[in-house]
Amino acid sequence: MADGRVERGNQTRRTVLDRTVRIASVDGLEGLSLGRIATDLGLSKSGVFALFGSKEDLQLATVRAAVDVFVEQVVRPVREEPAGVAKAWLLCERWIAYSAGRVFPGGCFFYTVSAEFDARPGPVRDEIATARSDWTRYVERVLDEARLTGAFRETFGATDVPQLAFEIIALMELSNAHSLLLDDTVAYERAGRGILDRLRTAAATPEELPERPPTTGVAA
Amino acid sequence: MADGRVERGNQTRRTVLDRTVRIASVDGLEGLSLGRIATDLGLSKSGVFALFGSKEDLQLATVRAAVDVFVEQVVRPVREEPAGVAKAWLLCERWIAYSAGRVFPGGCFFYTVSAEFDARPGPVRDEIATARSDWTRYVERVLDEARLTGAFRETFGATDVPQLAFEIIALMELSNAHSLLLDDTVAYERAGRGILDRLRTAAATPEELPERPPTTGVAA
Repeated sequence: MADGRVERGNQTRRTVLDRTVRIASVDGLEGLSLGRIATDLGLSKSGVFALFGSKEDLQLATVRAAVDVFVEQVVRPVREEPAGVAKAWLLCERWIAYSAGRVFPGGCFFYTVSAEFDARPGPVRDEIATARSDWTRYVERVLDEARLTGAFRETFGATDVPQLAFEIIALMELSNAHSLLLDDTVAYERAGRGILDRLRTAAATPEELPERPPTTGVAA
Repeated sequence: MADGRVERGNQTRRTVLDRTVRIASVDGLEGLSLGRIATDLGLSKSGVFALFGSKEDLQLATVRAAVDVFVEQVVRPVREEPAGVAKAWLLCERWIAYSAGRVFPGGCFFYTVSAEFDARPGPVRDEIATARSDWTRYVERVLDEARLTGAFRETFGATDVPQLAFEIIALMELSNAHSLLLDDTVAYERAGRGILDRLRTAAATPEELPERPPTTGVAA
């Protein structure tokens, strides 16, 4: 009996968070309302409130749920690949597919909520900041592992890794922003071209990388 | 008498917009409330409502007021400079100073409101999109004028201009985002380094550009 209740609670939690990550990617985390979500999903309000407590708890749980989706879509498919520039490029391709494929209807979840909370101190901002620095660290790690296997030219040192990671992330983020706001259909290709150019300049064997990025359409 | 009233109306309008661009850079445009602003500023609510009408009108006027500030801070100081890579770099320096100097308390106004409205169709999104494409076009124009004066290598053609503009804007935007959300103190230098590297690679006389970007501190 107790187990059944826990299982139902977990199921409801997943249903709610499935909805809130989608809403927040469009309207931001401030727009979330437990009451409205319960109504929309035909769930008991008191049940939903019991699961999440405060609006801030819901916001925090939503950020964590979005991290899970992001890891599943972008990081997991790449994780087991052997270290090298091809792996770094594959990670970028996964990110572009995640943004262009509108895994979240409002494009990259973290772009929306970062801009929303970056100047508002508190636990929600901290959670978003942690997610973004984990992502930055992961890109740096993939690049550094490539460096340690000799995938980059000799002139490319450990201190060049954070710079390259920064440049790659910058290109990906702007493609998301321009695709969404300007309906810019070539933004993802521009980002891919810039990233390949950066990786090729640094790579010991640039021929491992494709000449140009694939054409990336936005999911209808 | 009538002139005095018009002048007072204009003055109130400026006072309100001065406040709303600052609020919106932190909390977004959705958070604006004419009633609260009137109270905060000690203005008559009916007077403020008469000047702006709807919340959407206030949001549109706020975006336009932010454009004016941006043009004044970033574009105007550069406009009369002779075409060339030095001018392109100066424009980027002005942008970095605008973001790092926290001209708006929430960092770049357009980063906040773009992420807020990019997936919400309507006049406000269109106004933000226009502002951002005007900015992209301006960066492209500065680069293209440099190209036409022979400032870039022969291999750098007209089709390379939008790609270079995209990469430069991407680096600037991520420095704003990382500075705000991650308290990343080297983000502006990373952006500057990346931009100088891009410009130097394209330039016919790279020695016109500084070796490295200046150290950019965030305004206290």
